[in-house]
Amino acid sequence: MTLVSMDLNADLGEGFGRWTLTDDERLLSVVTSANVACGFHAGDAATMRRVCALAAERGVRIGAQVSYRDLAGFGRRAMDVPADELAAEVAYQIGALEVFARAAGAAVAYVKPHGALYNRVVHDEDQAAAVVAGVLLASAGLPVLGLPGSRLHEAAGKAGLPVVGEAFGDRAYRSDGSLLPRGQEGAVLHEPDEVVERSVSMARSGVVTAHCGRPVPVRARSLCLHGDTPGAVDLARRVRSGLESAGIRVEAFA
Amino acid sequence: MTLVSMDLNADLGEGFGRWTLTDDERLLSVVTSANVACGFHAGDAATMRRVCALAAERGVRIGAQVSYRDLAGFGRRAMDVPADELAAEVAYQIGALEVFARAAGAAVAYVKPHGALYNRVVHDEDQAAAVVAGVLLASAGLPVLGLPGSRLHEAAGKAGLPVVGEAFGDRAYRSDGSLLPRGQEGAVLHEPDEVVERSVSMARSGVVTAHCGRPVPVRARSLCLHGDTPGAVDLARRVRSGLESAGIRVEAFA
Amino acid sequence: MTLVSMDLNADLGEGFGRWTLTDDERLLSVVTSANVACGFHAGDAATMRRVCALAAERGVRIGAQVSYRDLAGFGRRAMDVPADELAAEVAYQIGALEVFARAAGAAVAYVKPHGALYNRVVHDEDQAAAVVAGVLLASAGLPVLGLPGSRLHEAAGKAGLPVVGEAFGDRAYRSDGSLLPRGQEGAVLHEPDEVVERSVSMARSGVVTAHCGRPVPVRARSLCLHGDTPGAVDLARRVRSGLESAGIRVEAFA
Amino acid sequence: MTLVSMDLNADLGEGFGRWTLTDDERLLSVVTSANVACGFHAGDAATMRRVCALAAERGVRIGAQVSYRDLAGFGRRAMDVPADELAAEVAYQIGALEVFARAAGAAVAYVKPHGALYNRVVHDEDQAAAVVAGVLLASAGLPVLGLPGSRLHEAAGKAGLPVVGEAFGDRAYRSDGSLLPRGQEGAVLHEPDEVVERSVSMARSGVVTAHCGRPVPVRARSLCLHGDTPGAVDLARRVRSGLESAGIRVEAFA
Repeated sequence: MTLVSMDLNADLGEGFGRWTLTDDERLLSVVTSANVACGFHAGDAATMRRVCALAAERGVRIGAQVSYRDLAGFGRRAMDVPADELAAEVAYQIGALEVFARAAGAAVAYVKPHGALYNRVVHDEDQAAAVVAGVLLASAGLPVLGLPGSRLHEAAGKAGLPVVGEAFGDRAYRSDGSLLPRGQEGAVLHEPDEVVERSVSMARSGVVTAHCGRPVPVRARSLCLHGDTPGAVDLARRVRSGLESAGIRVEAFA
Repeated sequence: MTLVSMDLNADLGEGFGRWTLTDDERLLSVVTSANVACGFHAGDAATMRRVCALAAERGVRIGAQVSYRDLAGFGRRAMDVPADELAAEVAYQIGALEVFARAAGAAVAYVKPHGALYNRVVHDEDQAAAVVAGVLLASAGLPVLGLPGSRLHEAAGKAGLPVVGEAFGDRAYRSDGSLLPRGQEGAVLHEPDEVVERSVSMARSGVVTAHCGRPVPVRARSLCLHGDTPGAVDLARRVRSGLESAGIRVEAFA
Repeated sequence: MTLVSMDLNADLGEGFGRWTLTDDERLLSVVTSANVACGFHAGDAATMRRVCALAAERGVRIGAQVSYRDLAGFGRRAMDVPADELAAEVAYQIGALEVFARAAGAAVAYVKPHGALYNRVVHDEDQAAAVVAGVLLASAGLPVLGLPGSRLHEAAGKAGLPVVGEAFGDRAYRSDGSLLPRGQEGAVLHEPDEVVERSVSMARSGVVTAHCGRPVPVRARSLCLHGDTPGAVDLARRVRSGLESAGIRVEAFA
Repeated sequence: MTLVSMDLNADLGEGFGRWTLTDDERLLSVVTSANVACGFHAGDAATMRRVCALAAERGVRIGAQVSYRDLAGFGRRAMDVPADELAAEVAYQIGALEVFARAAGAAVAYVKPHGALYNRVVHDEDQAAAVVAGVLLASAGLPVLGLPGSRLHEAAGKAGLPVVGEAFGDRAYRSDGSLLPRGQEGAVLHEPDEVVERSVSMARSGVVTAHCGRPVPVRARSLCLHGDTPGAVDLARRVRSGLESAGIRVEAFA
């Protein structure tokens, strides 16, 4: 018997106009938290509305997936945005999403940076502070989803915002708890059984085997799943089943 | 003695990034309602934040100036946007602005379409309904500022939204109460004394002399002022002084 | 024995950044003319470069698929763009594409308007003239691909530009040679055999059966194929095979 | 008597749609080389066309001022753009401008990176190589204007492209020939006489007094002038007059 629970989050609504990317309908049957694109790297207004309505119907929590303003680069290119601009842009995106969450009878329940901004605020103190300032501008007390130990979580903690750590079942960890960078061999795990096993291990014991073979603690209340390929959604389902079979409650973070 | 009051509205925050257009500081000392650009035809997030803060400080009411998505055309090119997209885009803009109004201790108090969208919803029933749908998505009960007798006001009225009619002291009217189109001779009045006199007349008696010389009723609770040239701000000041000298209270609409 | 030949054109490179739409590789093995998106409705610079290189390798002719500036609407929303802006925007797109065509050892060989602009210049004289002015700005003598009898072809003809008429094997025609609008029942044909048969008929005899059952002349030197779904590419292949089996040479227009 | 000549370059056409920034008409009476914005940080197509026509009329050389794709940040925010994307985007901009230069009876005669890209390629080898790759894609043999000793000039030189060094009469230099960063005290000089005197000194002797008081060699064939304020244009005129009075020929670089 276990009392452990785990949130599953994924990026949704990452199309733009005529273009689609994420399989939003199927993903919403797997995850408990939806990181909804807010128009800066993806996510036109009509898509945001539709995804919020679907998420609310299924009881999936809605989060603002905020990004650099970069449709051409899908928010994957780090940008030296001055702090005041970045803070305002983060707030802008949250506010825009809030309208559609509210219209669906829900609310924006957390904020998660996307892509290059996510990676930047792991170590960049100024941009981390700017993101937190943007969250505070938009709404008091919104939890910030991110990497445990990141500058973003430090800044959010200092500002009195709740922080939610996330982990990755399909990524290799270093012994200090950081992720092996994507470029390196073995950084991304593709074997479904292994991804499920690691996800269960992190959920149950907060420990995963690092790249070097040693156990490493990973404190996370949410697991990040991917959904931009059909195979990815299948893998996401298997992770969810694996967690449930292991007696772990799959539910949005408290 | 008179009990008449009049609102003065103008477009603000119509820069974008490095570019500026409206003299926001000076305009805010004249108007009682600020139509703040929301990022689709103008208005980056940092500017929206700054303008909302300034407006709130001065007790000027904040309205969402919603537009087609068209930075290159400054929202001045009519677009055949499908109704569901347009409704979502209107809601998106209102939500984004709401964040900055709220952060300044205020709230978005009304909605006014900009440029080509403003002109389109005078007669286009579908787009008028889409704008109203967008307002309803964003917030219950926001007043809609526009041309008296427009399809927009019809649609807003049907939906139970308050409507606020506006008039133009510097535009020629036809005898049916519509505006003489800009292209035609005499459509825009430049003589300050005449603009002030007409503004006072519309505020006090709800009547103005039409292009043909006949009096025409113009029911408006707000006068639209312009502020994109230095001369325009001076004229705006003179209109305000003229109204006050005539015993008309200059204040935001109830 | 027949001397008849037919060009096959399709839209290519209609992704943007992270998003893809058209199956460019497979389409390039079917068509003889590639309408390459130039960045205004789709088509980032890296995609334009790649598609031009692939087209040149396969001996497929490169055309500039020019559009309204409207990524969010994929160029499908008619816009009232002033003539001088539209002409300059058309020229801009052609020039940008020319660089990648030239780098691939080829050249931009024709111009075809996209989406809402294509439909608009069927009847709008001012925008048709503006598109032609843009083509002339960019390069002397580029052929203009479009609907026979359109205002675009009239304006191009007056300006001394070659015009290339195109036809649609999968669309119903009215007895006057115009297309049955998409909204109407039976406007788009889905039965592959019928599409092939009509394509062959138009290529061989310049005649197709109209919606009302009567034969209608359709003078076209190019057939437009679609490629934004896997099924569409298969259908395109069948049309090409059908034409070849009927003894029609499939080759770019002279 | 002297045989020395100097080019004067400035950024032009840096408006966008409704917004203007540079006083293009007045600047074109001062400079010999116009860095024309190409649409990525500023410069809509109609403005590009107009500026090219004016420049060609006045015999001013036209250069492509290429930028990161960043209208909201005016190209002033460094971006980690992958090399192949950056190369294609540089080529795209040059090609678009080429159309308007050619229509005016001229040609794009050089390339100069703008803003954050300019600063980045001083030291970033990968982006410098990408810019050069973009120039080569667009056209063989275009000169590259930039900071002497920059990675950009190294990469251009290796690729066989001519390089043109530029200097700044209104910026403080360090003793190694680099610019004192803008943030530091005394980095920008405002005293007109001093700016003129330094400009003449650099043109005549290739030497300027560094911030520390020592003479430092500055080999430049072009001086960069600014034009985004009325005062700046007046200063530009004074620099030109000062050079001419000192017997220096003001003319585009060979």
